[in-house]
Amino acid sequence: MPEPPSHTRRSFFGIGAGAALLCTIGGEEVSLDGRDAAPRADAAAARVRRPGALAQATFPAPQPAPGGTRREYWIQARSVIWDIAPTGRDAWHDRRIRGKTNFRAFAYQPMTPGFAQPLAEPSIPGPTLYAAVGDLLVVHFRNAERKLRQAVTMHPHGVRYTPDHDGIYLGDQTRPGGFIEPGETYTYLWEATPDSVGVWPYHDHGPNHTLNTFRGLFGAIVIRGPGDNPPDREFTLFLHQLIPPVTGIDRTFQAINGRSAAGNTPTMTARVGQDVAMHVMGMDNNFHDFHVHGHRWKDASGAFVDTPSVGPNETITARFVEDNPGRWLYHCHVFSHQDGGMAGWYLVE
Amino acid sequence: MPEPPSHTRRSFFGIGAGAALLCTIGGEEVSLDGRDAAPRADAAAARVRRPGALAQATFPAPQPAPGGTRREYWIQARSVIWDIAPTGRDAWHDRRIRGKTNFRAFAYQPMTPGFAQPLAEPSIPGPTLYAAVGDLLVVHFRNAERKLRQAVTMHPHGVRYTPDHDGIYLGDQTRPGGFIEPGETYTYLWEATPDSVGVWPYHDHGPNHTLNTFRGLFGAIVIRGPGDNPPDREFTLFLHQLIPPVTGIDRTFQAINGRSAAGNTPTMTARVGQDVAMHVMGMDNNFHDFHVHGHRWKDASGAFVDTPSVGPNETITARFVEDNPGRWLYHCHVFSHQDGGMAGWYLVE
Amino acid sequence: MPEPPSHTRRSFFGIGAGAALLCTIGGEEVSLDGRDAAPRADAAAARVRRPGALAQATFPAPQPAPGGTRREYWIQARSVIWDIAPTGRDAWHDRRIRGKTNFRAFAYQPMTPGFAQPLAEPSIPGPTLYAAVGDLLVVHFRNAERKLRQAVTMHPHGVRYTPDHDGIYLGDQTRPGGFIEPGETYTYLWEATPDSVGVWPYHDHGPNHTLNTFRGLFGAIVIRGPGDNPPDREFTLFLHQLIPPVTGIDRTFQAINGRSAAGNTPTMTARVGQDVAMHVMGMDNNFHDFHVHGHRWKDASGAFVDTPSVGPNETITARFVEDNPGRWLYHCHVFSHQDGGMAGWYLVE
Repeated sequence: MPEPPSHTRRSFFGIGAGAALLCTIGGEEVSLDGRDAAPRADAAAARVRRPGALAQATFPAPQPAPGGTRREYWIQARSVIWDIAPTGRDAWHDRRIRGKTNFRAFAYQPMTPGFAQPLAEPSIPGPTLYAAVGDLLVVHFRNAERKLRQAVTMHPHGVRYTPDHDGIYLGDQTRPGGFIEPGETYTYLWEATPDSVGVWPYHDHGPNHTLNTFRGLFGAIVIRGPGDNPPDREFTLFLHQLIPPVTGIDRTFQAINGRSAAGNTPTMTARVGQDVAMHVMGMDNNFHDFHVHGHRWKDASGAFVDTPSVGPNETITARFVEDNPGRWLYHCHVFSHQDGGMAGWYLVE
Repeated sequence: MPEPPSHTRRSFFGIGAGAALLCTIGGEEVSLDGRDAAPRADAAAARVRRPGALAQATFPAPQPAPGGTRREYWIQARSVIWDIAPTGRDAWHDRRIRGKTNFRAFAYQPMTPGFAQPLAEPSIPGPTLYAAVGDLLVVHFRNAERKLRQAVTMHPHGVRYTPDHDGIYLGDQTRPGGFIEPGETYTYLWEATPDSVGVWPYHDHGPNHTLNTFRGLFGAIVIRGPGDNPPDREFTLFLHQLIPPVTGIDRTFQAINGRSAAGNTPTMTARVGQDVAMHVMGMDNNFHDFHVHGHRWKDASGAFVDTPSVGPNETITARFVEDNPGRWLYHCHVFSHQDGGMAGWYLVE
Repeated sequence: MPEPPSHTRRSFFGIGAGAALLCTIGGEEVSLDGRDAAPRADAAAARVRRPGALAQATFPAPQPAPGGTRREYWIQARSVIWDIAPTGRDAWHDRRIRGKTNFRAFAYQPMTPGFAQPLAEPSIPGPTLYAAVGDLLVVHFRNAERKLRQAVTMHPHGVRYTPDHDGIYLGDQTRPGGFIEPGETYTYLWEATPDSVGVWPYHDHGPNHTLNTFRGLFGAIVIRGPGDNPPDREFTLFLHQLIPPVTGIDRTFQAINGRSAAGNTPTMTARVGQDVAMHVMGMDNNFHDFHVHGHRWKDASGAFVDTPSVGPNETITARFVEDNPGRWLYHCHVFSHQDGGMAGWYLVE
């Protein structure tokens, strides 16, 4: 594959909010500024030395609140060849998507207890975790990756955890859950407290977190409050870009849940009368906003909206009782994002 | 006009949130990355084939709710030579604005019934549409454009519509209101429902929607709730950039309502004691925030603010009882936007 | 110091939301697109002619409301050599920060009455101003800068002021507080009204406001409401970039309060049981969002959040009763911002 012309490489710089996709990996600064960047970042990640203070937990292990239960998950991380556009088409525009569309993604995979069997393939996003206030999420995590030789983690938003279960690499200050090397396992304990109600992302926060999160190591956590009625139809949508330094492909894909363009991105469905919730999170360096044709809803403040903004790792929820049948487009309303594939179908009977 | 030096062309890439202003125009990807880009996009738009399923409406036509009325508008789209800075000056900085400031805009124009006569020139933004909850907006739309040979539409936010009145090109899935060719008319039926209360944008969503919206095909819809007191002074402000690929001019204009720099952008006026509402919408690939000197107001959540963020096609409203006479500047608070002309006067007696 | 290679210079363009850091200074447009840009901007600022209408105040001087008091501050602006990374390290990643890290900043400095003595060194941010609703902030301001020969100001958000105390350069329309030349003083009168409750930025709004604000001329104002309980621990954090055209250093620093990387940025501390408030403001051309590990809080609308977005000169507040001991990272969640140093420690006993 020939090197792209320099003006194309330069356009990579425009992707992030800063200059290029600058990563700090262990003690090294790595600028992800071309298709050959990921191997350099991986090599830097492989050189990160094991922090000294990992050996034991310092903080008492949390328990479920009275009446709460343990919600157990078994999840592993591994790389997988992922097709960004399996249909080869953009169904919105009847556009053929040419060229390479698959890359080595890094993704979370749900497993049966004891990591005995896969429950599904690794996917972008990873499995959605569910808990109610008072529950304890018990997430058995394994780094099952063999090719990308580096430590990864799971870092959750929204839930409560002690530093041992933060899942963040902090150099010498790293706690046990913050550096899970290939072949290792760790059990994260995350509490669903009253202020955890909502939908939140989780993602890698190991030494190479930016590249690995951009490669697909993220998923959603849904925490219900005591009086919550779960919606009839519930969707979690991650808005993000798959960029050349991450994919090695000489174009940027505007993506939702790891896929680009209607027909590849999630096709959501509902029936008139159903209570529908779409939870939308940003998962890159950009700000997005989320529009569903034919629908409006109340935001958290009580105002009616149909295109709220959402930043990296922020969540907005579109929730409404469905009353409008038809084929609808949903999309990020940053115009170049929607044109580039950050769009999908919502079909209402 | 000579080709701009390459470093200038490159800076075009920085404008959007993705790499360049990438458009998908009926099966074709067109990268708007230079001053010569618009004709290529227009040619692509002219090649988009007429969708097959346009012939007839599928969904029952909505009616006004009991007690509601039909609010009828006649609007056409056509291109017009538009001056971004008619005074030739930036009155904030006593700065002369040099060089070319006009370009072929694409704009909505209000007409008398039956498209008999213009009510006004085409303008950026187009005419503001008003309705109350329960009303039916009946918008007779004509594509009156002769030079830019392509289908356009009107797509509304905030109101309720069936897919026939969505005004979006969807390839083979396009409904009747989604592909209005030159010379054609279509009557959009849009319901003001209880969750439509607020101020919303409308814009082109035809096959070439990004370029055409960036050229000026947008406007506002104001929906009053049952108990609403209309403000004494009401303004709709669109924050957007007019960029070289759109204007063919070798510089970016930071604009409000199609004009750049104080004295060209709207000069708003009010008197002490008046109830003032400024509705601010983003209308490009960028995020903005809106500041009015000398004023604060409650946002929808009840917090006091004076510089709220606003994304593409999102709306924020600054509403307050005027109590502070003087000459005030209002502006986007992204520093480079305000310096580049996204600013104007607000004069209070 | 050799000229950086051109692809590095080009990456400067990606920093702002528009093309480069475009400034309008007096009647001149100055594009801050390289390390040598600041002197050109300063020269332009030095050429701005003194506006004619500065001589006298036009509006009646405000007084404290009944029961309110005068809150007097003496503040001067002057340039100072400022170290962005005094520890020379990024303590999160055990990373050595190489190369030059100091530059000529422009900063506000608190003084004793009559400008008799410094209360502290000039700092980024400047001194935090405190008032309660009903109070009058009386800010005696002096332009004490000798090297950067240009007028500067203080422009506040959130408080009420007449045009005389707006602190904005408006060309011929400039009021007395909008053009304070080297050696001059001005006393700003700012009212804390009921809709001023909150935390707000202040910053330079003179003829060279973008460059000077980016150099460090900003600070915070805290206004308490009648029934407010001040938090036990209160922090004001400004998220911003220090970019090559501003610093003359050939790299961008992702910064908080003028410092980059954990150990240089503020290390916040609290004890379990304390009422903690973190007020976070954007202060550059970018949008940010703010995450604190191990914590969640209610936003103004009542929703639970842990990563809210914040735009330029907007404020969000994270307020919670501390219940989670440990060493926590806080950071902007734009991935490239956090990796580049927009992060810090929050230590809870």
